[in-house]
Amino acid sequence: MPVRLGELAVRFGCELRGDPDASVERVATLQDAQPGTLSFLANPRYRKHLATTGASAVVLDAASAAECPTNALIAANPYATYARIAQVLHPEHSFAGGRHPTAVVDPQAQVDPTAWIGPHCYVAAHAVVGAQVFLGPGTVVLERARIGAASRCVARVTLCADVHVGERCLFAPGVVLGADGFGQAPDKDGYVKVPQVGAVRIGNDVEIGANSTIDRGAIEDTVIEDGVKIDNQVQVGHNCRIGAHTVIAGCAGISGSVTVGKRCMIGGMVGVVGHLEICDDVYLTGKTMVSHSITRPGLYSGQLPLDEARRFRRNSARFQNLDELARRVQKLERSKNDQGGPADE
Amino acid sequence: MPVRLGELAVRFGCELRGDPDASVERVATLQDAQPGTLSFLANPRYRKHLATTGASAVVLDAASAAECPTNALIAANPYATYARIAQVLHPEHSFAGGRHPTAVVDPQAQVDPTAWIGPHCYVAAHAVVGAQVFLGPGTVVLERARIGAASRCVARVTLCADVHVGERCLFAPGVVLGADGFGQAPDKDGYVKVPQVGAVRIGNDVEIGANSTIDRGAIEDTVIEDGVKIDNQVQVGHNCRIGAHTVIAGCAGISGSVTVGKRCMIGGMVGVVGHLEICDDVYLTGKTMVSHSITRPGLYSGQLPLDEARRFRRNSARFQNLDELARRVQKLERSKNDQGGPADE
Amino acid sequence: MPVRLGELAVRFGCELRGDPDASVERVATLQDAQPGTLSFLANPRYRKHLATTGASAVVLDAASAAECPTNALIAANPYATYARIAQVLHPEHSFAGGRHPTAVVDPQAQVDPTAWIGPHCYVAAHAVVGAQVFLGPGTVVLERARIGAASRCVARVTLCADVHVGERCLFAPGVVLGADGFGQAPDKDGYVKVPQVGAVRIGNDVEIGANSTIDRGAIEDTVIEDGVKIDNQVQVGHNCRIGAHTVIAGCAGISGSVTVGKRCMIGGMVGVVGHLEICDDVYLTGKTMVSHSITRPGLYSGQLPLDEARRFRRNSARFQNLDELARRVQKLERSKNDQGGPADE
Repeated sequence: MPVRLGELAVRFGCELRGDPDASVERVATLQDAQPGTLSFLANPRYRKHLATTGASAVVLDAASAAECPTNALIAANPYATYARIAQVLHPEHSFAGGRHPTAVVDPQAQVDPTAWIGPHCYVAAHAVVGAQVFLGPGTVVLERARIGAASRCVARVTLCADVHVGERCLFAPGVVLGADGFGQAPDKDGYVKVPQVGAVRIGNDVEIGANSTIDRGAIEDTVIEDGVKIDNQVQVGHNCRIGAHTVIAGCAGISGSVTVGKRCMIGGMVGVVGHLEICDDVYLTGKTMVSHSITRPGLYSGQLPLDEARRFRRNSARFQNLDELARRVQKLERSKNDQGGPADE
Repeated sequence: MPVRLGELAVRFGCELRGDPDASVERVATLQDAQPGTLSFLANPRYRKHLATTGASAVVLDAASAAECPTNALIAANPYATYARIAQVLHPEHSFAGGRHPTAVVDPQAQVDPTAWIGPHCYVAAHAVVGAQVFLGPGTVVLERARIGAASRCVARVTLCADVHVGERCLFAPGVVLGADGFGQAPDKDGYVKVPQVGAVRIGNDVEIGANSTIDRGAIEDTVIEDGVKIDNQVQVGHNCRIGAHTVIAGCAGISGSVTVGKRCMIGGMVGVVGHLEICDDVYLTGKTMVSHSITRPGLYSGQLPLDEARRFRRNSARFQNLDELARRVQKLERSKNDQGGPADE
Repeated sequence: MPVRLGELAVRFGCELRGDPDASVERVATLQDAQPGTLSFLANPRYRKHLATTGASAVVLDAASAAECPTNALIAANPYATYARIAQVLHPEHSFAGGRHPTAVVDPQAQVDPTAWIGPHCYVAAHAVVGAQVFLGPGTVVLERARIGAASRCVARVTLCADVHVGERCLFAPGVVLGADGFGQAPDKDGYVKVPQVGAVRIGNDVEIGANSTIDRGAIEDTVIEDGVKIDNQVQVGHNCRIGAHTVIAGCAGISGSVTVGKRCMIGGMVGVVGHLEICDDVYLTGKTMVSHSITRPGLYSGQLPLDEARRFRRNSARFQNLDELARRVQKLERSKNDQGGPADE
């Protein structure tokens, strides 16, 4: 449904340069925008498309506004402002409370009448489903699990027993919350399973991507604090605590008993060894292995970049003798000094 | 059901050395083959089993045919020919159109009468299910999604809203197509969700393995072109385009807005950083991290091979001072030249 | 339900120092223990909490017993003994045999009357479900699959056709057993699917974590031997054999046709290239890539540790010229020898 630019400017605190009565009704990229669309410029690599955009309005910062060929909504943080306007133009589909005839809700479950329990869902005894919760098809909520107001499970999400979820969370298909942690006690004839009697506690405004898994604690709970955003196929082991407003990119794996601070950014395929602590405001680039605790905020890396395969193989063969190479350099240095070579500059 | 070798030779363009009236009815490995089975030789490491095979026929190339102790089906590409014959001997199970009584199909969905909608499936409003489509148990097809003729979802596959799938595709259990991309706009109090209003478009003859995930686009569609083959637990981020006939091995992760060319081979656990372009005919060995665009076809690597742990630790400790080591070598070189040492050969 | 320490000491072969009539009813960590709880000390990093614990009893080894401020259960292997006692204090929930009204069981399936078939489960023709098997909500057991006595599928597990599972196994939500292996024969116009006609055979006492996938064999079966423990999001390719009592941590990926020995420990995110053999008793640290077979037991590594990003970038730039650096060092060494420098020590 079309929205006037004047209304958007007021609602989201933008300066409007252009026609307040022009309206937009959906979003588009700068290069493919048609009349009636809203676009944005946040990443400088797309600036080249600004001058020729067909959008009816563009969200951008003050420095770029002069180049804007159409109505400009000027914001200090164009990407976040764009995101908020896009939420208005493309609202979540609404739903009425109730349950699909194929849903199974245990009589001892407590389900708010404004919640929707979709086809083939199962809600077990003593589970609690809050107001305006959406459980998409095939979602499973096991015994005593709780899911807070306005949280949504798109489809085929599993909340295992005793998992507690806050409000306004979003879980993509295939998410598993509260499966047993990997507790195996070695013994002479193999392993003895260590019962995982803790649960998972998830704060408010948490988003978890498709097929990600958050294990329940061995004794105490695994905790995901408010505002954490987790991408697809991420694994969080038992007893972890992930600090508020940390983001974790796809395919990362956090071993058990790891504490991650607040506002961290964990890149894709990062792996964190168990029992470590990562302080607040740590950024890890993709594929880094965290093998010791991190006590200072900052940016950390650990994965070699790719190279042409033959060259890489030659270099990695040398790597396997790097310690010896370093010793040979030391010997050359000592030899030079013994010869009374020129003093070090 | 047994098939005569003469018939297979004609149908698949092989030269037959042996008895055209001999028949085979299932496949076997060279070393475990019994009478009535068909085997093949494509990988030289298994040549040692050829002379003693019990198979009734072997598919192999002309160079190996002289060593074949049984009927030989000679093909230029033995592995592909074997695959085609195996499809005949072990056909997909056939099914009649219809729907299981527990399936839920929205009255506004459009389902071809030759399609099968299995137990506990859900097909939402305005979804379109083509001819001879197979939806195995627990499959979910959300609003306006479309799945083309003869495509199959083995079990528990999720097609999110607006996803379009071509013909003759195969999706393993747990596949999630069209979950929200990971769009989070940082703001002063955390992150603002960026609505993901694009969808996923999948071509014809695409195969996607168990628990793999393909995210919907932020604005435009994520695209998987014809003939792409994706293994298990692969993650493809929003706005990616994967070129035709590219194969992606297990556990690889492609970040958002990446373009991969045609006929690429992406090894297991490869990670690709966001917003990059990989040209056609690029091969990436396992675990490589792609941190910049690739503009030339070829073979690329980036992961060190394993080593005995103590030795690896010594070498990686030296790696942490590699820049300094290189500077020390430079200094030695300069020092040598200052001394008037022997000229470089 | 409370259990007397005297009973536990007898049942699990511990020496009890303290009151045999004291009882415990649940487990706790040393630092958060309340009266009525049992704790344990196995990892030295938690020894600091022993003196002040509020637990009613602690399982520990003889060397630590003197420091224990409360009842001590002394065991040679405190962690395994703790695990066994915790299983008594926190037993698996019991269930009666039967099936939920929404479960679909093919008339040609064979289901033991003591097994439980949960809501929205599907058991196909000729499947066999053993005594006291638990199939949680949304579990799918396809044609001819078999699952042995006392095995449990928590929720939304998929057993594809012909998969055989032993006794007392535990599968977490999202596990997929027996999806097609990744068999694609390259041909001039793309790939030909290689039918995957083998199955998966899983021994007794195997545990597989959430969203892990074990592919069916191409011709023969993929085999997981007794007592193997697999964490979340692990991928095991077709034709693999994983030896008894091997453990595989989260997000590891084993390519096709790999043989892993017995009692191995495979760290998180380890990747193994296809067609390799790993002997018994191999330990691989996290993120290692196994690119050649391993024939000697031992500990192996292959992933660089993280570093401050700028420093890492400088060092990895040098890595890209490591072969050349090594050649330069050789030249310096030759030059020194030509000059008649001091003999090597």
